[in-house]
Amino acid sequence: MFSITVRDHIMIAHSFRGEVFGPAQRLHGATFLVDATFRRPELDDDNIVVDIGLATQELGKVVAGLNYRNLDDEPEFAGVNTSTEFLARYIADRLADRVAEGALGEGARGLTGIAVSLHESHVAWASYERTL
Amino acid sequence: MFSITVRDHIMIAHSFRGEVFGPAQRLHGATFLVDATFRRPELDDDNIVVDIGLATQELGKVVAGLNYRNLDDEPEFAGVNTSTEFLARYIADRLADRVAEGALGEGARGLTGIAVSLHESHVAWASYERTL
Amino acid sequence: MFSITVRDHIMIAHSFRGEVFGPAQRLHGATFLVDATFRRPELDDDNIVVDIGLATQELGKVVAGLNYRNLDDEPEFAGVNTSTEFLARYIADRLADRVAEGALGEGARGLTGIAVSLHESHVAWASYERTL
Amino acid sequence: MFSITVRDHIMIAHSFRGEVFGPAQRLHGATFLVDATFRRPELDDDNIVVDIGLATQELGKVVAGLNYRNLDDEPEFAGVNTSTEFLARYIADRLADRVAEGALGEGARGLTGIAVSLHESHVAWASYERTL
Amino acid sequence: MFSITVRDHIMIAHSFRGEVFGPAQRLHGATFLVDATFRRPELDDDNIVVDIGLATQELGKVVAGLNYRNLDDEPEFAGVNTSTEFLARYIADRLADRVAEGALGEGARGLTGIAVSLHESHVAWASYERTL
Amino acid sequence: MFSITVRDHIMIAHSFRGEVFGPAQRLHGATFLVDATFRRPELDDDNIVVDIGLATQELGKVVAGLNYRNLDDEPEFAGVNTSTEFLARYIADRLADRVAEGALGEGARGLTGIAVSLHESHVAWASYERTL
Repeated sequence: MFSITVRDHIMIAHSFRGEVFGPAQRLHGATFLVDATFRRPELDDDNIVVDIGLATQELGKVVAGLNYRNLDDEPEFAGVNTSTEFLARYIADRLADRVAEGALGEGARGLTGIAVSLHESHVAWASYERTL
Repeated sequence: MFSITVRDHIMIAHSFRGEVFGPAQRLHGATFLVDATFRRPELDDDNIVVDIGLATQELGKVVAGLNYRNLDDEPEFAGVNTSTEFLARYIADRLADRVAEGALGEGARGLTGIAVSLHESHVAWASYERTL
Repeated sequence: MFSITVRDHIMIAHSFRGEVFGPAQRLHGATFLVDATFRRPELDDDNIVVDIGLATQELGKVVAGLNYRNLDDEPEFAGVNTSTEFLARYIADRLADRVAEGALGEGARGLTGIAVSLHESHVAWASYERTL
Repeated sequence: MFSITVRDHIMIAHSFRGEVFGPAQRLHGATFLVDATFRRPELDDDNIVVDIGLATQELGKVVAGLNYRNLDDEPEFAGVNTSTEFLARYIADRLADRVAEGALGEGARGLTGIAVSLHESHVAWASYERTL
Repeated sequence: MFSITVRDHIMIAHSFRGEVFGPAQRLHGATFLVDATFRRPELDDDNIVVDIGLATQELGKVVAGLNYRNLDDEPEFAGVNTSTEFLARYIADRLADRVAEGALGEGARGLTGIAVSLHESHVAWASYERTL
Repeated sequence: MFSITVRDHIMIAHSFRGEVFGPAQRLHGATFLVDATFRRPELDDDNIVVDIGLATQELGKVVAGLNYRNLDDEPEFAGVNTSTEFLARYIADRLADRVAEGALGEGARGLTGIAVSLHESHVAWASYERTL
């Protein structure tokens, strides 16, 4: 199995609901390093998993929709705890949509899986992986 | 599949028995960066894998039992090569016990796997993963 | 010249005023890795710059006052752009106060400088250094 | 499942053929951080996955054959796009050969998988994993 | 003294002349992580060292002139050993020119120093610093 | 001012004397990442600070004398707290001796300073710098 991973980042504000979150129930924020991994069992005709330039560009578009925002104010996330885990899935699902739409090129049709990791600090991160 | 990972570290002394270890048969030491990963297929009602605060706290308790010690002097490890791999399993198994005891919260009942990685330097690390 | 550095982190929300900040004028957030460096020309009688345990503890206290907060709501920062550079100085000055109060131990009287770096992402950071 | 990973690096020149590569069709170069992971379900009699010293040494020998070279001039790679993904597989396969030849010790007979990751920068990396 | 640093990277081919370089006399390549630091004694009216967006953009323009190239073929570097140290100075000097031209904004007139570090691997890097 | 830095690491055991050290008074250990920096105001005739190969080799020799040892048993350190700060100076002074002996090449006569940083974990490090 092969994979390539590209990294971007976002800086957002949000708050959580639920006693389990303790002080993180207050409005605070995070820099998330966002690592998007694309997997496939065999390389394409160019000897690659996917065009790394397109992968970087599409990840950039997906995270641009979140960057420099207060997620508490986004209608899309009304009533949702935008936890690191949740955001990893959100980004992975948007990337899966892009692949299905052909935005990562025809060669990307061979992709079989996507994983997204979000580092919220040097001592904590979360991941979500799914098939395509 | 979702996961969250938290990082802590320990500073220990130990030695190894066996020619394969070369100069590491002498009493020496290591800083281990300890990364504990908790996995589950779906998020809980709070939209998380497990309370990251509790996960950090319980990892801290587990590694506190090893920290600032000469592992050669610990009765628990008598006659054991406390290799990086071995310590990864040791910590993963202790964390599994904590989950079973409910120390990571009721929501942690949904966890299905634990992985622990120990970085012994910037150029070498070991991992162990198990189901719950 | 000797120094020791300890690392902590905070997760905050804030916004900036001024066209130069572009989209960062919106309420957003950041994880700041906070590196505090303490300098002195000679080691103390224990062969150290300062008790690293106390340094870690005092840095922890200083950043706890900022953590999980929306800095826009803090009276202390009313009308202030809480830029990465500004926060580096803010933390350095609080640490300098602690040193002067003796919170880092009597040996810390020999410290001659403090520097604080805040990493706002893997591709951007800021620093402030001052004498004591 | 257990694993150990060792890191080395190479500095090479190469170029790519295919419009998808854009400016990387020009002769350029890369530093690749090379992480080689060895997996097995149970530890050997020494409580290790494989002798980390031998693993480091054999990885060093494999990458020495690529280091400080223009891959476009290597007969072995004539007509091949030496992408990061391709090189990950190339190195993994060479390491698998070494294991089969006994170069990593008799204990290494218990290894069941190898994975190789190549970091081409702080924001992009590729991996290949295979069974033994 | 305050500073901010922004990171970019380039992937280049080159070779060196001189026995001291050993195997690096052959055509090879490198990924350089490029960290550009801007210093000034006091913050500007916006409470910043320099607009981090402009700093990132200008660093990007400077390194774009080197990226995906064989430096041996660049007339500008004919007969020059394009060592890591040399390239650090080259980039620092180009950035100094941009500051003088006003490309980093009027506020950047207060900058007093620039430093550039190039990481050629996880185990080697070089720096150059100069006044403005 | 120019500099180059090379990284190596050691794994040692030791203990400290003095109440300030708390649990670190027990025999424990550390992995130290060792970064050695060499400075000079102008590059030599090869356009470098110092031969990075020789610098790596000489740093390797210096740290080999400490690696895989219990520093409490080394006569050289009898009665000495081998703190991270102390070891940074120890290594810097040994490297300065090597430079004076010509082990880093004739070109190294132009070096004007050495700095050594030891990372004892991902959250704590120490440095020492001196002139030549």
